[in-house]
Amino acid sequence: MNPSHPSGGGAVARCRDLLEPALREAVSVLHPWGARMAAFALGWADADGRPHQGDGGKGVRPAIAMLSAEAVGGTAESALPAAVAVELVHAFSLAHDDIIDHDERRRHREALWKAYGVGPALLTGDALLALAVNQLAGRPEAMSYLSRALIELVNGQTADMAFENRPWRGPKVVTIAEYTEMVAGKTGSLLAAAAAAGVTLGGAPELGDLMWETGRDLGVAFQIIDDMLGIWGEPHVTGKPVYSDLRRDKKTFPVLAALAADHPAARELSDLLAEGVSDEDSVHHAARLVEEAGGRAAAQVQAERYVAAAVGVMDEHLPDAADLRALCVSLADRAR
Amino acid sequence: MNPSHPSGGGAVARCRDLLEPALREAVSVLHPWGARMAAFALGWADADGRPHQGDGGKGVRPAIAMLSAEAVGGTAESALPAAVAVELVHAFSLAHDDIIDHDERRRHREALWKAYGVGPALLTGDALLALAVNQLAGRPEAMSYLSRALIELVNGQTADMAFENRPWRGPKVVTIAEYTEMVAGKTGSLLAAAAAAGVTLGGAPELGDLMWETGRDLGVAFQIIDDMLGIWGEPHVTGKPVYSDLRRDKKTFPVLAALAADHPAARELSDLLAEGVSDEDSVHHAARLVEEAGGRAAAQVQAERYVAAAVGVMDEHLPDAADLRALCVSLADRAR
Repeated sequence: MNPSHPSGGGAVARCRDLLEPALREAVSVLHPWGARMAAFALGWADADGRPHQGDGGKGVRPAIAMLSAEAVGGTAESALPAAVAVELVHAFSLAHDDIIDHDERRRHREALWKAYGVGPALLTGDALLALAVNQLAGRPEAMSYLSRALIELVNGQTADMAFENRPWRGPKVVTIAEYTEMVAGKTGSLLAAAAAAGVTLGGAPELGDLMWETGRDLGVAFQIIDDMLGIWGEPHVTGKPVYSDLRRDKKTFPVLAALAADHPAARELSDLLAEGVSDEDSVHHAARLVEEAGGRAAAQVQAERYVAAAVGVMDEHLPDAADLRALCVSLADRAR
Repeated sequence: MNPSHPSGGGAVARCRDLLEPALREAVSVLHPWGARMAAFALGWADADGRPHQGDGGKGVRPAIAMLSAEAVGGTAESALPAAVAVELVHAFSLAHDDIIDHDERRRHREALWKAYGVGPALLTGDALLALAVNQLAGRPEAMSYLSRALIELVNGQTADMAFENRPWRGPKVVTIAEYTEMVAGKTGSLLAAAAAAGVTLGGAPELGDLMWETGRDLGVAFQIIDDMLGIWGEPHVTGKPVYSDLRRDKKTFPVLAALAADHPAARELSDLLAEGVSDEDSVHHAARLVEEAGGRAAAQVQAERYVAAAVGVMDEHLPDAADLRALCVSLADRAR
């Protein structure tokens, strides 16, 4: 995921200012070489260890943890261990995903494994995960949400990998329901843990399970929007090549929704994808067919539906959710 | 590490019988494909998912957890979550280590990444770690030991990797003190967590920190013995090629001790290693020089010293440590 414009408000920036010193302190217990690679992965340093002012990610997950705590009357600081933990888990998953997917670029820079090699990058991912666990080891309620998220995260990534061997047509095509379960794990679980651990540490553990569901819905919306950006996003914004997910045969929401449509373009699309879209012309053509069959519009509608469900829960159950709500709405607007 | 003859007694087998159903239950929450790869990594299945009766490791770490609980008057079952967790972390670290080191064989079979590919093996390692964390998420005292072990483990592995770029002679040679710190992390931390979490869950949390040190000493002994087996072990026992660590320029205890000796063979060895030992003759010659300079004897003495320290603590502080003590002594006898 690459949240391009997570929020117009100052709340996310305020959370980021709290987060960064805590993240740096967490990383300081690593071996110096490991700390240097972690600093690159987190966006503070270039590959030679020099300070880097770049796109280290917008910190959506930690902001959700801290704003969730505030939404139940706690302080942002109270949720800081959860905020640090989810940001570290996010960095861990990106480091390993880029190895798995052979992605050479990340946030307009080399991927970690391109900069340091596969072995060191793999180990740095492990280190980031160990630091995340360490943040919440002494807080069993929040830790249980993080632990559940880790299992759902790897299960979602395994499902995503297994989808690569599924066909584009016929009875074994990936369904929207299967897609939704996969992204609920791959992307939803960490937002779920952020929200649930956030309200728990903010003083309202009784809202933890409800916020888990809410965070997961947000995550599904987030991933659907990311899927849209992966096809139609501007490369200078997303940091990825245009149409990159189409080139890699990724089972994304717009494509699956287009294939499921009763439309002539859907059949043409499944034939084209089954042949494989390798050259520029066929990739462009596939993107046009996805749009023609209604895949892009369906994705926008579905993402907005999930965000609306999440916002509805906040409006009903959280006394002071204005900043959290604004962040969620801004996430849904990214693909417009 | 590859404990070849961890114990003559039935205590380890008794622990293994308790462990296996709990491990299988832990793995059952994974995606079916992930569960299949985990079953291969844990030694229950071959690469096609068929049941496999093989060398899944002797279960030394979980036995230490369970026997530590018994040693303070608790039941083996009370320490089962810690036992499962340390075995899963061990399997995680082997899965990732084999990717990092390009090792194609593990326990007389293909390494996980050779069987399934780097991406799936990497993800399976992550899954095993997530399951380990899940075992102790609700037990903050034991979780804190596991969390500390994870950080020391990755720091030790990072140090081990950094040693690859260190020379064989001159002022930048790796010292025995640096080696010891590295293996205390890479190998000692997980045995430390097993012992400390074991007594904690067994009802004596006040002994946790002491048993951490004791387990770490055992781990250092364990690794020194493994280093000896990595040079002089029988390939059909260790499952590794003869002299494998020498071929790979690994900074192991016998070699470092030999280099530090005031002996003509030490100087000849450093010259030989600096040139690189690639052919059969030079590898054999290097092994002979390590022995001639006293590296093998020094390793045996040092391992026995660490085991004696650990056993001394057990004799003084644990009321019923007979089985745990026997296991530890048997570990020290592996290299004889």
